[in-house]
Amino acid sequence: MNNEGLQVTGKGLNGIKGYKYAGIKCGIKKSGKEDMALLFSAVPAVAAGVFTTNKTKAAPVLIDLDNIKNPVTRAVIVNSGNANACTGKKGMENALRMVDITARLLGVDHREVLVSSTGIIGVQLPMDNIESGIAKAVQSLTADGGDAAARGIMTTDTRDKKTSLKLRLEGGEVTVGAIAKGSGMIHPNMATMLCYMLTDAAVEKGLLQEILEETVNDTFNMISVDGDTSTNDSVIAMANGTAGNTVITRKNGDYYKLLAAFKAAAEAMATEIVRDGEGATKFLQVKVINAPTIEDARIGAKAIVSSSLVKAAFFGEDANWGRILCALGYSGADFDPSKVDMHFSSSKGTIKLVNMGEGLDFDEEKAALILSEKDIEVVVDLHCGEYKSTAWGCDLSYDYVKINGSYRT
Amino acid sequence: MNNEGLQVTGKGLNGIKGYKYAGIKCGIKKSGKEDMALLFSAVPAVAAGVFTTNKTKAAPVLIDLDNIKNPVTRAVIVNSGNANACTGKKGMENALRMVDITARLLGVDHREVLVSSTGIIGVQLPMDNIESGIAKAVQSLTADGGDAAARGIMTTDTRDKKTSLKLRLEGGEVTVGAIAKGSGMIHPNMATMLCYMLTDAAVEKGLLQEILEETVNDTFNMISVDGDTSTNDSVIAMANGTAGNTVITRKNGDYYKLLAAFKAAAEAMATEIVRDGEGATKFLQVKVINAPTIEDARIGAKAIVSSSLVKAAFFGEDANWGRILCALGYSGADFDPSKVDMHFSSSKGTIKLVNMGEGLDFDEEKAALILSEKDIEVVVDLHCGEYKSTAWGCDLSYDYVKINGSYRT
Repeated sequence: MNNEGLQVTGKGLNGIKGYKYAGIKCGIKKSGKEDMALLFSAVPAVAAGVFTTNKTKAAPVLIDLDNIKNPVTRAVIVNSGNANACTGKKGMENALRMVDITARLLGVDHREVLVSSTGIIGVQLPMDNIESGIAKAVQSLTADGGDAAARGIMTTDTRDKKTSLKLRLEGGEVTVGAIAKGSGMIHPNMATMLCYMLTDAAVEKGLLQEILEETVNDTFNMISVDGDTSTNDSVIAMANGTAGNTVITRKNGDYYKLLAAFKAAAEAMATEIVRDGEGATKFLQVKVINAPTIEDARIGAKAIVSSSLVKAAFFGEDANWGRILCALGYSGADFDPSKVDMHFSSSKGTIKLVNMGEGLDFDEEKAALILSEKDIEVVVDLHCGEYKSTAWGCDLSYDYVKINGSYRT
Repeated sequence: MNNEGLQVTGKGLNGIKGYKYAGIKCGIKKSGKEDMALLFSAVPAVAAGVFTTNKTKAAPVLIDLDNIKNPVTRAVIVNSGNANACTGKKGMENALRMVDITARLLGVDHREVLVSSTGIIGVQLPMDNIESGIAKAVQSLTADGGDAAARGIMTTDTRDKKTSLKLRLEGGEVTVGAIAKGSGMIHPNMATMLCYMLTDAAVEKGLLQEILEETVNDTFNMISVDGDTSTNDSVIAMANGTAGNTVITRKNGDYYKLLAAFKAAAEAMATEIVRDGEGATKFLQVKVINAPTIEDARIGAKAIVSSSLVKAAFFGEDANWGRILCALGYSGADFDPSKVDMHFSSSKGTIKLVNMGEGLDFDEEKAALILSEKDIEVVVDLHCGEYKSTAWGCDLSYDYVKINGSYRT
């Protein structure tokens, strides 16, 4: 990825032109913390979305799949603490009401509003709280409400997640900002990953969708939590064109610059989600290089970082390269087992463990020192082509089991 | 499955006509326990095999994939303690030597011998021990050596696994016996699942292969350990025709009777493997019923029992039906989420948790009582067809992480 010209500003959503935000408390969460966020574009914007592939889709996702087709989008209303999933007909009615109330109070069409919910599954939304919450959120909208909005979408996250970047396109400087929620080790029912990526760039709706899909493929789809795809996962992008750049209407230089900015922002959010895994003690970056196709590189890297055995080995700081070869082997990736090299790295150094598919008689003490660090990189060289992919994950710890064994009750 | 006429005798391999077995100690395992097994048919037998789909296949598996094509098979030589996987050219030479020595000492052709290894990955076999071991095994062959052979294939198994059944076919009573190894929670590098199914029935080689494949699909492929397919997984069947039954040459009544016996024996072995999971505290049986196709039923049941979140919930005795619907949703199975019913059962009773896709306001105390048992059954009714499938698994416990975090070193 070419990140030339990207300036990280770290302000999250604040400072993107033409948007207002709110993050408020409406009493859904017993903790009394923020549990609603509203993102609003002062002018008609275009939106793009990537949603869960789970067949059991929560009511808000079903609505978004429809409303995202509207040429114009103005707002996203989000509640946390309750996922409105597996809630049947009444759940769908409630999600529609969230959209309708938001649209009416903002004075926009109901097709211009998207909705997300995250939290516990199978419980109906407390609609009194939701209704008064939306009214409060609409009243609270301000240009610097981005941080409150970032808090409003959190569930078990230990910290809010936000990023922003500036870049120069033809005709103007644009900003891409994002907020996200989700925890690396995935929390039952709270497992949902949500991300909102806003920009003031001017770009056609179809191209924004292409940018978002490629971005998600390389980032959110390359993190392993525990393989369970939630009923509510959503990544939504909006672009309102207020930056004054020349509208991007084809895959020109500006398109690829904007794509690079989206990827950089999404990678920051995706890796933040992994790092925020309650119970995670290690951050793993797995690179599969010199693969015959990009798909082989992706599925190989993803399988390695998703393996419970690999994850548990890193928790134990055990240089168990056999499990990595094993995961690569069942991933479905095309490669020649007799050509594979493997290295582990951390700030303590690099060690080669596998040469041409065979285990080396490596220095166990050096390996232990490298694995004692929190950030570990695994590089698997297939020597079978020129494609590469990176996946991110965390280890499997006692706390993962503890947290996930007693969540609901 | 129609198990009419099947008589469980529980003798393992002993008592199947025309075979001899050995299980001996040759010093591969530091523990000094049995680490080699030899299975030998006194007369030419036909064999069938189902092997790991992992692209990284251990040397013995590569040899078996070739030798299984031979019309006649006489013996299987197995060592435990070392998997001879990721051992390159030398590993292949060593596996071939195991076959050659066994064939020479037994006076059979090298193409008539199959070989398996299980244990640590990436370390060359101690060939001195292997060679003297094979000689000792050949000398130790006896008709009642089945139990020693069952011990000889164990790695982290806490107990040996064996079963046998008798059934009457046209022209004679036949016996099907099996031994297996593998642990439910899967042990790093030792993850391999091995099973040997022997019978004195007379059946054509091609039909034996069909019987074995259908058997494996319904049994070993329906247990979840942790999703990692090992480099060495093998299920091998032999039939030597010494029982005197009319040779099975087509899919007649006897074919289906023999198939039922194989399935019953394999189900016993597969569930034993799940129950022997060190660190496992629960045994889960997941039935997906009324699915549109058998494949939908299978992938749905398998996804549920394989989900880390579902497993962790059962460890915590938490009636978290939302995670089960979620796993079903991402499984790829075809179903209508608004038609799903779900029940949990144990010896303490049955409770309905989901009706037509929506969570019920169930009795939490009753659910807790049911989940306090070791054996739990989950029934998911899709109301979308007439196919069903059962998967077996265990919970995800602290001990899983402990065992798998510190295996290799």
